[in-house]
Amino acid sequence: MNLISLEPSDFVADDQVMLRDRRLEHARKHLGLAPGDRVRVGLLEPLGAEPPSAQIGEGEVLAIDREGLLLRVRLSEPPPPASPIILAIALPRPPTLDKVLQHGTAMGIKRFLFFHTRRTEKSYWQASALEPAALRHAMVLGLEQARDTVVPEVELHPRFLPFVEDRLAPLRASMPVLVGDPEGAEACPRAHEGPLVLVIGPEGGFVEFERERLRELGDRLVHLGPRILRVEAAVIAILGRLG
Amino acid sequence: MNLISLEPSDFVADDQVMLRDRRLEHARKHLGLAPGDRVRVGLLEPLGAEPPSAQIGEGEVLAIDREGLLLRVRLSEPPPPASPIILAIALPRPPTLDKVLQHGTAMGIKRFLFFHTRRTEKSYWQASALEPAALRHAMVLGLEQARDTVVPEVELHPRFLPFVEDRLAPLRASMPVLVGDPEGAEACPRAHEGPLVLVIGPEGGFVEFERERLRELGDRLVHLGPRILRVEAAVIAILGRLG
Repeated sequence: MNLISLEPSDFVADDQVMLRDRRLEHARKHLGLAPGDRVRVGLLEPLGAEPPSAQIGEGEVLAIDREGLLLRVRLSEPPPPASPIILAIALPRPPTLDKVLQHGTAMGIKRFLFFHTRRTEKSYWQASALEPAALRHAMVLGLEQARDTVVPEVELHPRFLPFVEDRLAPLRASMPVLVGDPEGAEACPRAHEGPLVLVIGPEGGFVEFERERLRELGDRLVHLGPRILRVEAAVIAILGRLG
Repeated sequence: MNLISLEPSDFVADDQVMLRDRRLEHARKHLGLAPGDRVRVGLLEPLGAEPPSAQIGEGEVLAIDREGLLLRVRLSEPPPPASPIILAIALPRPPTLDKVLQHGTAMGIKRFLFFHTRRTEKSYWQASALEPAALRHAMVLGLEQARDTVVPEVELHPRFLPFVEDRLAPLRASMPVLVGDPEGAEACPRAHEGPLVLVIGPEGGFVEFERERLRELGDRLVHLGPRILRVEAAVIAILGRLG
């Protein structure tokens, strides 16, 4: 945790917050905070909030005990630039979903689109990891890691064709769609500038029908060489390569 | 698992293996194999084995039940090319160690050097995750993921200065040493060809003394932008960027 995230409801005065949950535990057990210490804090904000303002700054410990952490906060800096990449991923099993959300958020992703495929287990759509609070928690951990405050948005698309045909259509009109696929015909490009949709299939890959549909729609299937990576590693490696 | 790994001790005839452990369980529960099915197999080999030969091929299921999986195997292909990058990482906590070994191995790393730093907890050096069987297990999972057979080597260096001064010295003579560090003066390069040592510090980063010593020794401190990533994500992102 490189930043302690604040919610509007934490404020007990214009410039003071009282924290009681996992953030208090982290401050006591891992940071060992004492009155007078200063820590980096950031006020969480939804994507597209206006005006995008100074949300990151310093918190001075006024008091800390088992019951709570009282900080005087001064917010002075904007969050780091967001990634222009939209991440579209076949809904993975819950532990992988958690990693994709955390690491993707830490790397600056602001839009996650999860979709169904033939090789996506239907039970994944009922997982508690998909509840809004669980999704948000994973993303907040990523924000705290990367010293960011802008909470990404998540879309769930439980049908493959409506997703790739209808939802991706308006995006295709304005940005390239890259599909990371071991069967891709070209190597994944490097150092992409500007908006892009990065599509990642399920563990085990797309079935031929799905791959063919994406190709017909004009998307570029790109590979990372002969080594097949797990979904969470493929996401991070491709973002590292494109970023 | 995109390849079932074989050990020399699995062979019950020149071209037949009998598998009984987690590989049998995987074959029954996840692959649902039946007699006549074919699966990709690979014979594990130590780094530097001579002659480097055809270790990857096909296994045909001759029999499968609760007791064992009998395969007829034919090995015909070499493993995929290895990465020329040596990964030197401040020993992380055991779950992170596991991920670094798995994903690093899947990305083709053949040498892992783990070393001590001021911010490395001493207890990590006593973790059961450092026992040879545990290290090997994590790496074999990475090999099975990436369809590789060459088991990487791991070195443990429990003292910082002897590691960076003595162990890295002969490597420095023949290849660049890049230190991934949020305080680095230059951006991490892209698309590096040839050998390289990639050094990654602990969660929380190097202390100033350590950073200074690496700089004095001529290593290049490189950053990935303002976002600080967790160790396992930094490793994968930088390998993706360099690869």
